Amino acid sequence: MNKEWTGFVPGVWEHEINVRDFIQKNYTPYDGDDTFLAGPTKDTEELWAQVMDLTKKEHEAGGVLDMDTRTISTIVSHGPGYLNKEKETIVGFQTDKPFKRALMPYGGIRMAKKACEDNGYHVDPEIEEFFTIHRKTHNAGVFDAYTPEMRACRSNHIITGLPDAYGRGRIIGDYRRVALYGVDRLIADKKHQKDTTRIIMYSDVIREREELSEQIRALEDLKKLGEIYGFDISRPANNVQEAIQWLYFGYLAAVKEQNGAAMSLGRTSTFLDIYAQRDLASGLFTEEQIQEFVDHFIMKLRLIKFARTPEYNDLFSGDPQWVTESIGGVGIDGRHMVTKMSYRYLHTLSNLGTAPEPNLTVLWSTHLPMNFKRFCAKTSIESSSIQYENDDLMRVTHGDDYAIACCVSSMRVGKEMQFFGARANLAKCLLYAINGGVDEISKKQVGPKYRPVVGDYLDYDDVMAKYKDMMEWLARVYVNTLNIIHYMHDKYCYEKLQMALHDKKVTRWFATGIAGLSVVADSLSAIKYAKVKCIRDEDGIVTDFEVEGDFPKYGNDDDRVDEIASELVETFMGYVKSNHTYRGGIPTTSILTITSNVVYGRNTGSTPDGRKRGEPFAPGANPMHHRDSHGAVASLASVSKLPFSEAQDGISNTFSIIPGALGKDDQIFAGDLSVEMDEFESEN
Amino acid sequence: MNKEWTGFVPGVWEHEINVRDFIQKNYTPYDGDDTFLAGPTKDTEELWAQVMDLTKKEHEAGGVLDMDTRTISTIVSHGPGYLNKEKETIVGFQTDKPFKRALMPYGGIRMAKKACEDNGYHVDPEIEEFFTIHRKTHNAGVFDAYTPEMRACRSNHIITGLPDAYGRGRIIGDYRRVALYGVDRLIADKKHQKDTTRIIMYSDVIREREELSEQIRALEDLKKLGEIYGFDISRPANNVQEAIQWLYFGYLAAVKEQNGAAMSLGRTSTFLDIYAQRDLASGLFTEEQIQEFVDHFIMKLRLIKFARTPEYNDLFSGDPQWVTESIGGVGIDGRHMVTKMSYRYLHTLSNLGTAPEPNLTVLWSTHLPMNFKRFCAKTSIESSSIQYENDDLMRVTHGDDYAIACCVSSMRVGKEMQFFGARANLAKCLLYAINGGVDEISKKQVGPKYRPVVGDYLDYDDVMAKYKDMMEWLARVYVNTLNIIHYMHDKYCYEKLQMALHDKKVTRWFATGIAGLSVVADSLSAIKYAKVKCIRDEDGIVTDFEVEGDFPKYGNDDDRVDEIASELVETFMGYVKSNHTYRGGIPTTSILTITSNVVYGRNTGSTPDGRKRGEPFAPGANPMHHRDSHGAVASLASVSKLPFSEAQDGISNTFSIIPGALGKDDQIFAGDLSVEMDEFESEN
Repeated sequence: MNKEWTGFVPGVWEHEINVRDFIQKNYTPYDGDDTFLAGPTKDTEELWAQVMDLTKKEHEAGGVLDMDTRTISTIVSHGPGYLNKEKETIVGFQTDKPFKRALMPYGGIRMAKKACEDNGYHVDPEIEEFFTIHRKTHNAGVFDAYTPEMRACRSNHIITGLPDAYGRGRIIGDYRRVALYGVDRLIADKKHQKDTTRIIMYSDVIREREELSEQIRALEDLKKLGEIYGFDISRPANNVQEAIQWLYFGYLAAVKEQNGAAMSLGRTSTFLDIYAQRDLASGLFTEEQIQEFVDHFIMKLRLIKFARTPEYNDLFSGDPQWVTESIGGVGIDGRHMVTKMSYRYLHTLSNLGTAPEPNLTVLWSTHLPMNFKRFCAKTSIESSSIQYENDDLMRVTHGDDYAIACCVSSMRVGKEMQFFGARANLAKCLLYAINGGVDEISKKQVGPKYRPVVGDYLDYDDVMAKYKDMMEWLARVYVNTLNIIHYMHDKYCYEKLQMALHDKKVTRWFATGIAGLSVVADSLSAIKYAKVKCIRDEDGIVTDFEVEGDFPKYGNDDDRVDEIASELVETFMGYVKSNHTYRGGIPTTSILTITSNVVYGRNTGSTPDGRKRGEPFAPGANPMHHRDSHGAVASLASVSKLPFSEAQDGISNTFSIIPGALGKDDQIFAGDLSVEMDEFESEN
Repeated sequence: MNKEWTGFVPGVWEHEINVRDFIQKNYTPYDGDDTFLAGPTKDTEELWAQVMDLTKKEHEAGGVLDMDTRTISTIVSHGPGYLNKEKETIVGFQTDKPFKRALMPYGGIRMAKKACEDNGYHVDPEIEEFFTIHRKTHNAGVFDAYTPEMRACRSNHIITGLPDAYGRGRIIGDYRRVALYGVDRLIADKKHQKDTTRIIMYSDVIREREELSEQIRALEDLKKLGEIYGFDISRPANNVQEAIQWLYFGYLAAVKEQNGAAMSLGRTSTFLDIYAQRDLASGLFTEEQIQEFVDHFIMKLRLIKFARTPEYNDLFSGDPQWVTESIGGVGIDGRHMVTKMSYRYLHTLSNLGTAPEPNLTVLWSTHLPMNFKRFCAKTSIESSSIQYENDDLMRVTHGDDYAIACCVSSMRVGKEMQFFGARANLAKCLLYAINGGVDEISKKQVGPKYRPVVGDYLDYDDVMAKYKDMMEWLARVYVNTLNIIHYMHDKYCYEKLQMALHDKKVTRWFATGIAGLSVVADSLSAIKYAKVKCIRDEDGIVTDFEVEGDFPKYGNDDDRVDEIASELVETFMGYVKSNHTYRGGIPTTSILTITSNVVYGRNTGSTPDGRKRGEPFAPGANPMHHRDSHGAVASLASVSKLPFSEAQDGISNTFSIIPGALGKDDQIFAGDLSVEMDEFESEN
């Protein structure tokens, strides 16, 4: 056994890269309360004050304090950076100083350039020329392959938010491996993987061999990153401080290499607690010291920043990194996975104050210990900064070592990744069905020239038949568009460090997304149960509707419309699944918008449910605002009928309740679905 | 009809890109003699004197006069360059002045760097860093994917000369299209091709769409290259001077973009003659003027230069570009395709003096007109600078609009291209069969650990069985190695301008090659018909042989051994064909070395035919030196039995005869096979 592993319970994790086995053999569930927690140290307070001061300066400077315009970010591109080297117990910044944003043009030089210029900086002209002429980017590759139909769908907003002008993100490296095994062991493992690829050189085998070579180089660079800060991370971590530092170097290397839309951290707290327990038992560190390491680690995660354009920030309502950390949950052996470290992570919201990042996400289960539930409730009330997700639901598919990427996308850490795919506007698709593929706003023929609806009143069977045809078309264009995006991302912006922290055989989720679910459900309900009259413009395009009579509305636990919503999800996913997906990706979908529903609504004409042109959609799977008139439970019941098996990438229901409703210490709030309680609501 | 086409016979060539149709409808076969030819003009003489002076200076400077170390070569990277702008009737250099070699790092930055440093120049460090870290090259990609077995085969020289450290070349753009159609029409055609790809986005469809986008950009750049020199080549050429200039811009763009091992020109003379005939008839130009255009064009082709390493020059015995131009031949309608322009091209060897480049290749047929045959013979005698290839043989497969790439690789112009694959050493493979995969020189286990030959004497059936197994293995490794090379060349060093001058649907020849044919044939003959005793070293490895008795030798028209040679080609090609080839490439092979047979021999141990370790192989399909004891006809007869259907990439027989043997004007020499008569003998 490695000397760094002294005291750990042995297992197959020693002989193969298997962090889950290590955790299950070694972790200590904690049923106690929060009284063991330590407050911030003086150093922590001083460092945080420094951060707050820089944050203020950044704000005063218009949002960006400094940008690199010449050095292209790589894992080893910059020398070490510190807030205060003497006080920091966990070190490492993306560039050579805090708050300085890195230059990352692999995704697209125009975006990198614009991100600089909009903040008053200018990319070195030679860099720009180089990335325009000699080094193609993901964005350039995508637009070389798009069809005119794809471009039309994109510019008419029936497919939208596509990761073709920003990094797809949604890939979580298993950063814990760096701490448990050290980098040399990971390199040896990758070399073995390369030695055992298939032997006939089909193009996918060549690609795999090249990617493994890239991964090995990334791991070599990761070691160098440790050296830049004075650490030898070729060997396993010796104690909890090193474990946090090693793990953070893994994550830091990822965010130095990739500016993905969601750069999530994984599920690290229970893993790290094993080291903390050992160090507490041996007397190496005190609780106060360990909390300080955690506070400094979280502080670093709060300072992850990327150079982005104002447009990006508008779309995502802020400047999110989605440094999502998944906490708690229950093991498949029935033991809950809450540890003291779960508390320590959440306690940073107290020690450092509230913050949207890292996105601390509790994997909620009815089996979580009561003390932890209470602590979560209390921290939620105090901070409004915890996200909850349904572990009982996700554990069925993903086991007990998955984590959330971005806001709701679950994946087994180091074993699964996602091809992120933004979403299709199903409400606009309904209008295309009615207008024979003509966009109701641009008046352009975007979809196929199918027969439009004729006559004054909409007939349910007629509309449904046309809608299905149009959804089938939309699913085809959508999936093919995503095929291009992910092919090009792999080609020009491959996540070599993150993938180096994955197994060789990776399951790839091919994520699609649906927008406008409740609008369509209510529209179809109106057509079926009320009378909907078409209002046409001078060219005969239906641009508005008059609804005569009442109809069942989604969000009231009324099966007549809730079933329409469920069937819609199943039907669309059926069409999605009938398409070829890049690299064997397994199609999933999400019903998930948090803020972009406003943008979707802005770009969509009036709908048969009575919603007028430009009015926002409801977020995610939410009922339309004010239509869920039968109370919160009925509203949640409607949402809960949606088939999770068809939407495993997540169903979001933005559910706001005033803190007072959770106000008593001994009351627990547990959402049935993933419920966003952040003040910081963002669109992934 | 375009005004530029006035006077041409119409045809489908007007409505589709179809240069062959244009030629067939419009060319004028010429049966006359060479008395119409014009000598060099004063300007031509002065320009050529200038070239000779620069050549002398280049030689004095150690082989290179100037190198670009900072500006990466693209189609539009440099301003115009001239020898003497006033005197040049055809213009354009690869950089902004003659004799200045361009910086071309896409194939590999280390080679580009070494090419500079070995000549006393230094690549800008930023360029080097960029191509090391951010912009991967073909060479880097290949070595990321190679297996240890491939590396071993490469370093032990059983597979050799692979285009993994230099550009594969062997792609001929149809440069005539630029003249006939103008670039705008070609762009429109490519846009149409892009609009009509398959619609399901499989990775190969995405690749095709991206490549078409790259091709369109290359054509846009080609137009800009014309503008740099003051020409509008968006429209068709108006006369023969423009036609030559337009065509040359197409070729120039290719050699500004690619440093391929063989950058051949195609089959341009008969095409250009159509313009010349029209201009002569209208009185626009005199014969003297037209010859001047041709002389200046050929002068430009002679000045095509690349930055290469001394090692490259050693391997290829010089600094070849293989600017091969195919002249003459016969049409499938039976008319010969010799025109006055065929004479004019060959006449440059008189007007400018002899030269190895461009590699003027006569497509020889018994049906060529007697006057032209005489002229060829005469020019060969005077210049030793004509290559002859068998049109009667190649026309069967390729029709009448193919050309030779490099030295013998025939392909339909604009419709076929080749993935070049160097060659496998079948003599060494025989030794591997005898030694169970252990290399006889390095003593390393390179091949599979099959059972070696035991006992003192070789048994024919035993050796053949083992040899077949080893050939099957070698073919597999070889083809898979080539799959990697061509995948990476397409990925990192795609020939976008050359492919822009191809049809959408391109036939790709997957070229392999055989070295050591006569050594193996004689070795197997010795084993079969004489007694061959094994001499083993202290480890039991067979390192030498003693042949007891005589045996039939290849090259004497003796079927006993000639059949062994033929079967060998068929057997090896059978194994090659049983492998997956990249991009649907159609396997072919060549039996072709011209000088590298010396290197092959140097790296191969003693063989059972009595050849000692290190002794050269015979070149190509030649009999071993001095073993063809029954005269030239018997020697050629042996070679001619080889199955061309299995070796369509070419069979070379280096056949030297003293000029005196051709000395009388009225005698014609016509080789049965492609016969190299160059002083400049090079390995492609």
